[in-house]
Amino acid sequence: MSEARRKAALARDAAHALGLAPAATRSAAIAAAARIILERSASICEANAHDLARGREAGMPAPLQDRLLLDEKRLEGIASSLDEIARQDDPLGRVVGGRTLDSGVRIEQVRVPLGVVAIVYEARPNVTADAFALCMRAGNACVLKGGSAAQESCEAIAAACRDALVEVGLPGDAVQYVSDDAAHRETEELIRANGLVDVLVPRGGASLIRHCVENATVPVIETGTGNCHIYLHAEADVEKALGIVINAKCSRPGVCNAAESLLVDECAADRLLPPVLLALSERGVELVGDETSRLIAEKCGVAMGEATEDDWGREYLDLKMSVKCVRDVDEAVEHINRYGTGHSEAIVSESYAACEAFLAGVDAAAVYANASTRFTDGGVFGLGGEIGISTQKLHARGPMGAEALTTTKYVIRGDGQIR
Amino acid sequence: MSEARRKAALARDAAHALGLAPAATRSAAIAAAARIILERSASICEANAHDLARGREAGMPAPLQDRLLLDEKRLEGIASSLDEIARQDDPLGRVVGGRTLDSGVRIEQVRVPLGVVAIVYEARPNVTADAFALCMRAGNACVLKGGSAAQESCEAIAAACRDALVEVGLPGDAVQYVSDDAAHRETEELIRANGLVDVLVPRGGASLIRHCVENATVPVIETGTGNCHIYLHAEADVEKALGIVINAKCSRPGVCNAAESLLVDECAADRLLPPVLLALSERGVELVGDETSRLIAEKCGVAMGEATEDDWGREYLDLKMSVKCVRDVDEAVEHINRYGTGHSEAIVSESYAACEAFLAGVDAAAVYANASTRFTDGGVFGLGGEIGISTQKLHARGPMGAEALTTTKYVIRGDGQIR
Repeated sequence: MSEARRKAALARDAAHALGLAPAATRSAAIAAAARIILERSASICEANAHDLARGREAGMPAPLQDRLLLDEKRLEGIASSLDEIARQDDPLGRVVGGRTLDSGVRIEQVRVPLGVVAIVYEARPNVTADAFALCMRAGNACVLKGGSAAQESCEAIAAACRDALVEVGLPGDAVQYVSDDAAHRETEELIRANGLVDVLVPRGGASLIRHCVENATVPVIETGTGNCHIYLHAEADVEKALGIVINAKCSRPGVCNAAESLLVDECAADRLLPPVLLALSERGVELVGDETSRLIAEKCGVAMGEATEDDWGREYLDLKMSVKCVRDVDEAVEHINRYGTGHSEAIVSESYAACEAFLAGVDAAAVYANASTRFTDGGVFGLGGEIGISTQKLHARGPMGAEALTTTKYVIRGDGQIR
Repeated sequence: MSEARRKAALARDAAHALGLAPAATRSAAIAAAARIILERSASICEANAHDLARGREAGMPAPLQDRLLLDEKRLEGIASSLDEIARQDDPLGRVVGGRTLDSGVRIEQVRVPLGVVAIVYEARPNVTADAFALCMRAGNACVLKGGSAAQESCEAIAAACRDALVEVGLPGDAVQYVSDDAAHRETEELIRANGLVDVLVPRGGASLIRHCVENATVPVIETGTGNCHIYLHAEADVEKALGIVINAKCSRPGVCNAAESLLVDECAADRLLPPVLLALSERGVELVGDETSRLIAEKCGVAMGEATEDDWGREYLDLKMSVKCVRDVDEAVEHINRYGTGHSEAIVSESYAACEAFLAGVDAAAVYANASTRFTDGGVFGLGGEIGISTQKLHARGPMGAEALTTTKYVIRGDGQIR
């Protein structure tokens, strides 16, 4: 049996006890993991140094090295995020609905754990701790599969989580770390472990997510791909437009809630585009656009390449943005529903009617009027951390906190009633 | 392009307008469909007579002929079920959560349609009308694909639904009926129409459902397979046990909430099994059991075959039941979690502790103490009709009404805020 299937089976066996454990015990496990991670910061940093050394040897790019790096301060950040999840309201046992029948049969719908959650991710060791904590908050066992580049770091953190479970009397097997192999064989086993894994959450780049969605036979929650648009309506305030576009494009271009495409009403493009294009260009943003946008760019001396059909569907995750003029809000909505990934979409306008038409018409996890797409975040939305941002419509949509890792069951109590 | 993809694309285009239509207009469409179906009862019954004649020629078994049959009375039943759905509360637009940030950004989470729902089913023409109505209640376009045996009946009903949409000013393309072909090529196209179909709900026998779960690339909601158990605990009241077992096994053996397996505490088997086995045997139920159960059956003169490992996992959907003695509630829970399909599971006991342990420990859509598994039904649970009973944990679990055919989106309103 593969390592992935063997470990998923151990997690499955542990899940039952975990689902019955009281909230306080699961909170204690999360808090203990935070404490143990800090106690072991020297050895975790040492493991991380090995990963980093291997990465440098293999020519890992600097931004990836930075993602991988763990130091005292980052471990404190991880621990404090765990402490926050330990203090969160517990989603389990909440009665979300119910009724009593005339015959006296009492029906209630109660929130319960999913069971075993598998998370496949890349080179961010902090995901190990976050995923453990959110799974634990929701009473789930978890099978974690990080990338080979972060292997020693992830294993050291997973060991701390395991020891935390044992310390509070919960089964250590409820957290499993599956190590990587060059051929990703273990990932393939994990995403097909039906009966052992209840849901798979891939976290990482578009190709990892696409691979999971296309090849997994266990249920998958698609996360994270964000081809987000900012639409400047004819009645947009130029200051708000400027602030929102710059924030949504430039503050962290590599994150999924970054804007990738700018739409502008053509009747107001002469007023709105020049200051926005100049500001983007000053910040080093590469621009590509349709013919109308390019004429305006040329007039104000900003370089803009020709956008191809392919550009409208691209998530650059970089200082690059596509620009397109549209007739009106209807064309903007149509364009976004066609090319967007259903993540976060914003309109800037002082027109009540235009804002409401946009908010109602755009089909995405988060739709904005006059605010930056950067607000799409589990913490901001009040979920206390997130396991990912779902861009699918089934089960969970938008930032997913602990509640997205639960399901419900109907509990029916009678006195011998039949039907 | 295949018929299935072409029709799914038409549904996709119609879905946008439908999702923006007010509740009253969608209610009017459902009520109009009910009226038109009754107005056309003669021609619908004639279409049905053609299906039946073909079925008889092909040697269709009598129970299937009965499922297929439409007459004046059954059409009245269909129309009154539509009228009920037309009067139901609308799930769309409900604000299910939200918060206002210190910066004044207002976040609300609102219920919205899924988009395009595909339903693949077999020879029950009433599913055509029910599925249309529930999809419309939730603002979804639908692509319906019934079995070839019911084709003329389903097409006649789908045409009535389409005309009802047009009558109230909604796009008729929001309901599509895909006809069957011998090789099921259209089904294969439909279950792989990613980007056109948002969710697939298969309704029918276990092999249809398994085929969809294994081969669909669009998201599927698994429905209906019910290997349900009744567990008679040592402290069960024998009268309640008798009533519940007979009701759950014999009232409609072909339905998914029927009990297929009986578990009994071995220390009370001598008291509980004889009256139950005699009653089952009198009603023509074929019994298979483990060694202990067979000894007891023999003592009271009831025939009981030997149960194989395969029997514990079987959904007979017939007058047949497996019987097994267990040590205690823990073994019963373990057995059910191992062999059950997560549909409906019941304990009969006067012990508070045993009932609560069972209700907490069994992992299923519906868990019962001292009531028949027959209560698992959308109408009984207050959903007003059901599109199916989900036996999976993601998105929807248990009977699914209109709300299960919706998702949510976050709507964020600001005044230029960035982050």
